Amino acid sequence: MTSDATGNGSLLPGAGQWMYRFVEELYPICRSITGEGTRETLRRIATQVPIDIHEVPSGTPAFDWTVPREWNIRDAYVKNLAGQRVIDFNKSNLHVLNYSAPFRGMVPLEVLREHLFTLPEKPDWIPYRTSYYKENWGFCVSQRQADSLRDREYEVCIDADLKDGSLTYGEYLVPGSTDQEVLLSCHICHPSLCNDNLSGIALTTWLATHLREMKPRQSYRFLFLPGTIGAIVWLSRNEKIASKIRHGLVVACVGDSGIPTYKKSRRGNAEIDRAVLLALRTRGSEYSVREFTPYGYDERQYCSPGFDLPVGSLTRTPHGGYPEYHTSADNLDLVRPAYLADSLSIYMDVIEILESNSTYVSLCQKCEPQLGKRGIYRALGGHPDAGKVEMALLWVLNMSDGKNSLLDIAERSNLAYKEIYQAIKLLVQHDLLKKS
Amino acid sequence: MTSDATGNGSLLPGAGQWMYRFVEELYPICRSITGEGTRETLRRIATQVPIDIHEVPSGTPAFDWTVPREWNIRDAYVKNLAGQRVIDFNKSNLHVLNYSAPFRGMVPLEVLREHLFTLPEKPDWIPYRTSYYKENWGFCVSQRQADSLRDREYEVCIDADLKDGSLTYGEYLVPGSTDQEVLLSCHICHPSLCNDNLSGIALTTWLATHLREMKPRQSYRFLFLPGTIGAIVWLSRNEKIASKIRHGLVVACVGDSGIPTYKKSRRGNAEIDRAVLLALRTRGSEYSVREFTPYGYDERQYCSPGFDLPVGSLTRTPHGGYPEYHTSADNLDLVRPAYLADSLSIYMDVIEILESNSTYVSLCQKCEPQLGKRGIYRALGGHPDAGKVEMALLWVLNMSDGKNSLLDIAERSNLAYKEIYQAIKLLVQHDLLKKS
Amino acid sequence: MTSDATGNGSLLPGAGQWMYRFVEELYPICRSITGEGTRETLRRIATQVPIDIHEVPSGTPAFDWTVPREWNIRDAYVKNLAGQRVIDFNKSNLHVLNYSAPFRGMVPLEVLREHLFTLPEKPDWIPYRTSYYKENWGFCVSQRQADSLRDREYEVCIDADLKDGSLTYGEYLVPGSTDQEVLLSCHICHPSLCNDNLSGIALTTWLATHLREMKPRQSYRFLFLPGTIGAIVWLSRNEKIASKIRHGLVVACVGDSGIPTYKKSRRGNAEIDRAVLLALRTRGSEYSVREFTPYGYDERQYCSPGFDLPVGSLTRTPHGGYPEYHTSADNLDLVRPAYLADSLSIYMDVIEILESNSTYVSLCQKCEPQLGKRGIYRALGGHPDAGKVEMALLWVLNMSDGKNSLLDIAERSNLAYKEIYQAIKLLVQHDLLKKS
Repeated sequence: MTSDATGNGSLLPGAGQWMYRFVEELYPICRSITGEGTRETLRRIATQVPIDIHEVPSGTPAFDWTVPREWNIRDAYVKNLAGQRVIDFNKSNLHVLNYSAPFRGMVPLEVLREHLFTLPEKPDWIPYRTSYYKENWGFCVSQRQADSLRDREYEVCIDADLKDGSLTYGEYLVPGSTDQEVLLSCHICHPSLCNDNLSGIALTTWLATHLREMKPRQSYRFLFLPGTIGAIVWLSRNEKIASKIRHGLVVACVGDSGIPTYKKSRRGNAEIDRAVLLALRTRGSEYSVREFTPYGYDERQYCSPGFDLPVGSLTRTPHGGYPEYHTSADNLDLVRPAYLADSLSIYMDVIEILESNSTYVSLCQKCEPQLGKRGIYRALGGHPDAGKVEMALLWVLNMSDGKNSLLDIAERSNLAYKEIYQAIKLLVQHDLLKKS
Repeated sequence: MTSDATGNGSLLPGAGQWMYRFVEELYPICRSITGEGTRETLRRIATQVPIDIHEVPSGTPAFDWTVPREWNIRDAYVKNLAGQRVIDFNKSNLHVLNYSAPFRGMVPLEVLREHLFTLPEKPDWIPYRTSYYKENWGFCVSQRQADSLRDREYEVCIDADLKDGSLTYGEYLVPGSTDQEVLLSCHICHPSLCNDNLSGIALTTWLATHLREMKPRQSYRFLFLPGTIGAIVWLSRNEKIASKIRHGLVVACVGDSGIPTYKKSRRGNAEIDRAVLLALRTRGSEYSVREFTPYGYDERQYCSPGFDLPVGSLTRTPHGGYPEYHTSADNLDLVRPAYLADSLSIYMDVIEILESNSTYVSLCQKCEPQLGKRGIYRALGGHPDAGKVEMALLWVLNMSDGKNSLLDIAERSNLAYKEIYQAIKLLVQHDLLKKS
Repeated sequence: MTSDATGNGSLLPGAGQWMYRFVEELYPICRSITGEGTRETLRRIATQVPIDIHEVPSGTPAFDWTVPREWNIRDAYVKNLAGQRVIDFNKSNLHVLNYSAPFRGMVPLEVLREHLFTLPEKPDWIPYRTSYYKENWGFCVSQRQADSLRDREYEVCIDADLKDGSLTYGEYLVPGSTDQEVLLSCHICHPSLCNDNLSGIALTTWLATHLREMKPRQSYRFLFLPGTIGAIVWLSRNEKIASKIRHGLVVACVGDSGIPTYKKSRRGNAEIDRAVLLALRTRGSEYSVREFTPYGYDERQYCSPGFDLPVGSLTRTPHGGYPEYHTSADNLDLVRPAYLADSLSIYMDVIEILESNSTYVSLCQKCEPQLGKRGIYRALGGHPDAGKVEMALLWVLNMSDGKNSLLDIAERSNLAYKEIYQAIKLLVQHDLLKKS
């Protein structure tokens, strides 16, 4: 990454709006873990950044799993005896139990009720439910809708296919000057839900588009995958590449109003964990940090013991933590351009750290060098405090014994990473420091 | 231990009552570090569980110590000039300074006072005092009793022997399938004091009786010893056995209303320390943890630097921590069956952990295994939280890389040990896990 | 150090008064990093303790630095058009920018203002400012003085020399029975400022005077140096000696009313850090601890990565932390004999620890030895607590496995160092302990 790129401010104007418009564009599509909706979503991403779209046939084994059949849906409804659609897929694709088996027939109300899913505590919201690994059919409806059903029986139609086909995912590599990799992974299998995870798709797409321009030191691998099965399939096909991953983040829920939240990798103190914490601490605004748990998004797979990759997850309100989570209320109102932009700026700060973190060695380790004669220390003495620039210079010189990286110095000094980074550059210019 | 035994609930009904009745039975006996009272106490224990009763002759060396003479007392009193017993051993064996030298004679009041021990701040209570290692005679009385003495002189009689004989202790081994040992040790030298330590004797006896039935993995060694000298004698005669002790607890003060309290071993982070802390944390009620100090009960000897055994002490209110401690108020009212039963249940929880703690290895370390197809993961997806059972399964799978024991997993996941243990059993059944 | 010396109370009466009088004596002298004022200060110290006074010629290289020219000043003033001295060096040597270049001439007010330094927020105080490494002339005045200047132009005179000469520092070694060294270093370059650092000079001089009498185990090296350049020059000439320094303290700001404050060495957990913390904790009164930063006094140089010496700084209110810092208000009123004496007593407690800290081995590691038969444990048993003396004995015996020093034992037991030290001596007397 060139040093200009690390001043990432100039890249951001308009980014929030751009991401929000991309969320809007993808919102109507009915996605699932397989099928045309997911494929169409990848095609739209491909209009922005030339991702590779992989198709993996149904039945392909992937560790303990098997690639499932492809699900495609054309229409779905429940009609009352008067022939009116009282539940209609065209009004919201959440109405169909995601990955539902096809079904047609007249169904008594009491049987229909066994196939309806509601959220009694939020009577106007449609829940998002799935049945990927147990064949079932069903509808998700608001509690009010469910309560209004009075007819003896209903005509049910789920005009869908569940057939051999393929699982589809997208992949894109921005090559760096080394083959060490940074993984950025997002799940693309949710239908019309904005924060979870069109926000993550939009942010990841933006990063993929712009990292190309930055000539990074490390290679950046972007994955657009159906959740769980997608990550498992990718890992099963790319074990060798996985071993090159030095840092990774799972990108999700980055568009809501909640405070930035970081869930640590299984390792707990990996460089990615420290880099994100430093980026968050330096911002000066509220944030939250959670220990690793083996539940959540695809960090579950990346952090499985056989891989144990240093992959955390940087979200706003995390998985399951907001009332609108997995309901029809996770819509275009929940996500805002400003929150997307704010999340992006944290990702950029983290990337700046990952790109520039190195260990330098002071060329003047015995006592301080005389900074004054080089014009980089204020001439007038006697002030009670050193200036901020001077403090960063002194910290870098004092810690640069060859054992401490920029990250170490920023952590110990409690200064911002950027301040340490500026000091490093200044000292290198004055031949007082060199890369270790 | 069979897996049924780890659900120890079924063993406990009636246990509190049983232990309380045993305390009642032993209460009247006048014990000391040697002598018939202690021997009689061991005989009563032997009616419950076939302990070996060892006799070690006076004069036998034990490290820096020597087995003292045997003390036996028949009667003791102080009579006033009217011939009335104003202090009477028959009313309370605490009245005699424990291990007091024999004495007979008329004694002026001012001399008698030098041999009286009182508790001015608790004027109705008799203190418990001893003089094991400096020959002395004396009486312990309430302050009111002492204050009421007005005669010029008194007839004093301590009809006791202090002669060569032996020190007596009890020992019982429940052999396990390995020769690694768990030590459970209690002191038996206190006269009529209930919580300290008839409660400990009763609880230890109950455990000795019932562990026989459990076919434990480890061997359990039960010691019923006079405090300090008994532990020193046992260690001096059993250095080789001591080296097989993997975990140990000193059992004392387990019948009062105080909160459970754990005093850590000298090591501070031994498996016994972690197991007790986990058992206490999981209960959800209040408890207290103290760092090791070289004062207290026989953990002082087990944790001396030449042994440094992983032995802690699990009490309710600890050593010296309640007003009735070492007074006549440590009586049958201070101890209650419910507190004894509650203490026992913690000991059983700890034993469950010590018995079952092992390291397992996941047979599916690369990504999660597909639990759904095995029917051990809920079929309907989309809920904000995993269920509790699912979380335990995921934690076990994620942590079972061969480096983490059940205890490690329970600590990191913050789940109860039993939940982790259930998950382990379920995963072993499904061939997803095996013992490391 | 003889064991009597460790009860240091007897050395202190009068010490506060003595130090205060020495501060008074040195107060009027105009010091700088070089020159006669500094030389005269060292001569006064030499009347108390036979320090070596070293002269290092201007131009001598010292790592990245060069010994500067010698600065000597005879007079300095600013006269108004009426010929009155409106700024007068004779009234306060702070009025001249320290190390100011010589200057003479008529100067328009607007030019003069560029050479005046004030403290607007403290309008009656004269600031202390320096210009060592950039040639400049100037005056430091109160804001009120600056505001009162109304004439069109002023006559300026700084009758000073800035010529090749030498840098002067003082050094004194109290040899111990080993050649391991303890460094006590203070800066001597500030003009009429009492707390910073005549207080440090006085305390260091007192210690140098009295440590001679104590026959210490370690050698004590006392340095009286101009700040920064003096420490750098000393280190550049004494690299081999520096490698023998086991502990060190920079002595400064020890006479004000603030609470004792310790700034840790770069290592953070060196023996000196632990010793000072223990001494402070044991006193029972308020104190403050700060992590190392590469700003402050000469610990900056001693803790530079090429040396990384275990040198902290023990002050009262630290560097820059009080309003009077580096102003004319750091005068004889700010420093008090009682604060100097209190600081000294902490230094003496630290020295006691450094002198006596050792590792002992118990000669009775298997179980406790029987202290009672040696008459060093109370005879009457049954008390709820051990006595304080008994606890110290038990802690020492329990921890003395050859791995724990006195400092380790004091830290773990939470007892005072002196209590542990007394227990050590008693156990050595009874042949229960020997030096490791």
